[in-house]
This record gives sequence, structure tokens and C-alpha cells, in this order.
Amino acid sequence: METAFAATPKPPYYAVIFSSQRSADDDGYDAMAARMLELAAGRDGFLGVESARAASGFGITVSYWRDEAAILAWKRDTEHRMAQLRGRQDWYTHYEVRIARVERAYTRPTSE
Amino acid sequence: METAFAATPKPPYYAVIFSSQRSADDDGYDAMAARMLELAAGRDGFLGVESARAASGFGITVSYWRDEAAILAWKRDTEHRMAQLRGRQDWYTHYEVRIARVERAYTRPTSE
Repeated sequence: METAFAATPKPPYYAVIFSSQRSADDDGYDAMAARMLELAAGRDGFLGVESARAASGFGITVSYWRDEAAILAWKRDTEHRMAQLRGRQDWYTHYEVRIARVERAYTRPTSE
Repeated sequence: METAFAATPKPPYYAVIFSSQRSADDDGYDAMAARMLELAAGRDGFLGVESARAASGFGITVSYWRDEAAILAWKRDTEHRMAQLRGRQDWYTHYEVRIARVERAYTRPTSE
């Protein structure tokens, strides 16, 4: 999943920090990741996503949301729930999810 | 910087989400990253760190802290400030920093 910086609005908003260790099982993973990104991006309250995975298989994906209700609705999405199940069974050996309220943000553009 | 999952306490606590695009300039970067990790880990209120960088040079580092005072003190650390300056000048083409209050967290151990 190739992503770069998310153009988020002024805080406050919410972040879901998803840290994961991938298993060796690649079967269907890339297609799922692309589909989940597409589905999430179409949801009400979705603000953006940033993702990076190292060669070790350890990765962090942070998705940004307007509020907790939007996060909860996405968590309960039927197709997303099926992906979560496959994730637990096949694609990740371990993961951590943290839901956080973004209170301040600043950037450093190239021009500075 | 090789890190894995951070063993954080029960929320609430704080997260600093640092998203960055590395430049091609590697001069001193690895030594700085290792030194900043060492310095941060020794600070009062530091709870852990997770980091992943893709082959594209896009990376996410999330450090976890007890409270905002600990984050501010770390931001103002003299050696850290020098690293921030080098980062802006040399090592990153762009970065974003978001300070967030972690409100909920859950994990999925391998055993499940």
C-alpha cells in the first residue's frame, strides 16, 4: 500500500494507530490492503491515511477520522470485519490498535 | 532504527506521530536516529516507541509519553533540537508531527 502524507484538517480529530507484524502469508494480502484503503476512503468522516512497512515486516498505518463515531462505524463495516478476521488468522502474527485524539499538529514543508 | 511493539500502559497517555520522507542524504542519519532513541528512552515520562520506514523513504515513528509536559521537555532538549535542525536541513524533505491523546487501546496476541 503506497501512501504518503495525509492532508488532515486543523485538530481536533482522531487517529487510529495500527502497528502490526506481518506473517509470511501473502495470500490475498495486497488485494485486501488496497480494497480496505478504497473502502475506508469512501466512508463518511475519513480524513486520510499514512502507512509504512519496513523490510522486517513491521509496519505502522495511521488512519485519521473526524470523530469516534466514524471510527466505530468503520470498525463494524462487514467487509472490514471479514478482513480483520483474515488478518488475525493469516496475515499478522501480532498487532496493536490505539485510538487517539489529535490535539496539535505541525508540519515542516520542503520550502523551509 | 529497529523497533517493534511498544509495551505501553493502560490509556490515557500521549502519542507523538512523526511522519517523514527521507532525503537521499544519509550522512550521520543512522547515528542520530540511534542517539535520539537512546536519549528519549532515558527521559522521564517516556513510555516506548514504534517505527517503520518503507523502501520509498516514507516512514512513521510513534513515540509514547506519559503526558504533554514530558513531550514538551523532550522537544526542547538541546541535543534533540540540534537533531531537529539537521533533520529539517538535511535528512527529511518533509515531515508532519501530530500530538495525540491515546484514549483506547487493544492488542491481538499471536496466541489468539
